Amino acid sequence: MREVFHDELQQITDDLVGMSSSVRVAIQRGTEALLRGDVKLAEQVIDEDRGIDDLRTILDAHAVDLLARQSPVATDLRTIVTSMRMSADLERMGDLARHVAKLTRLRFPDIAVPEPIQPIVREMNQICLRIVDQVGTCLRTQDLDVVEDLERIDDELDELHRRLYEQLVDGHWEHGTESAVDMALLGRYYERFGDHGVSVARRVRYLVTGEEFQDRDD
Amino acid sequence: MREVFHDELQQITDDLVGMSSSVRVAIQRGTEALLRGDVKLAEQVIDEDRGIDDLRTILDAHAVDLLARQSPVATDLRTIVTSMRMSADLERMGDLARHVAKLTRLRFPDIAVPEPIQPIVREMNQICLRIVDQVGTCLRTQDLDVVEDLERIDDELDELHRRLYEQLVDGHWEHGTESAVDMALLGRYYERFGDHGVSVARRVRYLVTGEEFQDRDD
Repeated sequence: MREVFHDELQQITDDLVGMSSSVRVAIQRGTEALLRGDVKLAEQVIDEDRGIDDLRTILDAHAVDLLARQSPVATDLRTIVTSMRMSADLERMGDLARHVAKLTRLRFPDIAVPEPIQPIVREMNQICLRIVDQVGTCLRTQDLDVVEDLERIDDELDELHRRLYEQLVDGHWEHGTESAVDMALLGRYYERFGDHGVSVARRVRYLVTGEEFQDRDD
Repeated sequence: MREVFHDELQQITDDLVGMSSSVRVAIQRGTEALLRGDVKLAEQVIDEDRGIDDLRTILDAHAVDLLARQSPVATDLRTIVTSMRMSADLERMGDLARHVAKLTRLRFPDIAVPEPIQPIVREMNQICLRIVDQVGTCLRTQDLDVVEDLERIDDELDELHRRLYEQLVDGHWEHGTESAVDMALLGRYYERFGDHGVSVARRVRYLVTGEEFQDRDD
């Protein structure tokens, strides 16, 4: 019985790792679509977000079912409850990738990101990919060094976000107000994507150490 | 035993209603601070958000403790798990009110909201107050008419958000790019505040009917 339970907990962890892989594909393709003005790829990312939502629904149903059947306590209970919070973070990361993709569609056939801003968006995407890779790793390994590494990477993302913002408001913006608003919201999507990645990692640390934390959003 | 359990579930509902009251104060005062450029009031809202975070922590700990002690199944289990999702929504609403307050501080001694935009921000705040009042009511009463009413109110908020956005991008914006970016993010804070309110209400409906739903964010 105990072994079956352990397998089921492992299944939930595997499903979280699977969600992180789907989210990785979503932000990667969403950014690619955005920078190329590829509305077909954008539509695909938007459609596939439903799949990520479904992964969360299935994972959460499994977690609730485990609670009902096994009446876990202590560490097992904490693990199951925390996994539902992680699935919420990952689902939200998928939503944010969908928002990136939707901006492509909104500005089609134009490309939403002005050329001078493209390098910074590309960099934000790269950092988001590193974040989501590390999320997968720390879900699998519970390695706390990875959690700390992830917080440092997220600081880099915040710094890029500040640089993007500076370009919008330094008085030399030449791409109109609509585009400035687009870029401000876009920057926030990537920033929030990183925040939710950090949240997942901190939840892993909480499972290992019992250390409480607040969600990041400053 | 059963009666004690019922009292504890009632306590969790009361705590959710209490969170909704705190969130109401936060968005009301955050908006007041913003429109008056009242940095002292803004600081207060920012500080008090920690209290809302603490309410969530306490509520969630109580919920986990109930799961451990009572091993609930079926409706009781669903109620407890759902209450933790509601506390997450309400906590996030508090964060969004804090963001409104932080914009006051960022632009002080200037007033962040240009005069022509103030009426629409006032209206968005009013709608957010109606939303959070209805959230409290539907938590208390589980009245599904209130849930539907809430979705209609949130549509009004989305319409206001669209009107705000139109003013930023219609080509007649005279308040600079920085201010346009501020107003775009501000509009998003109120919109997301409403979305989370709707989520809480839909979770109430889910508890009554078992009907699944997706979070609102389009």
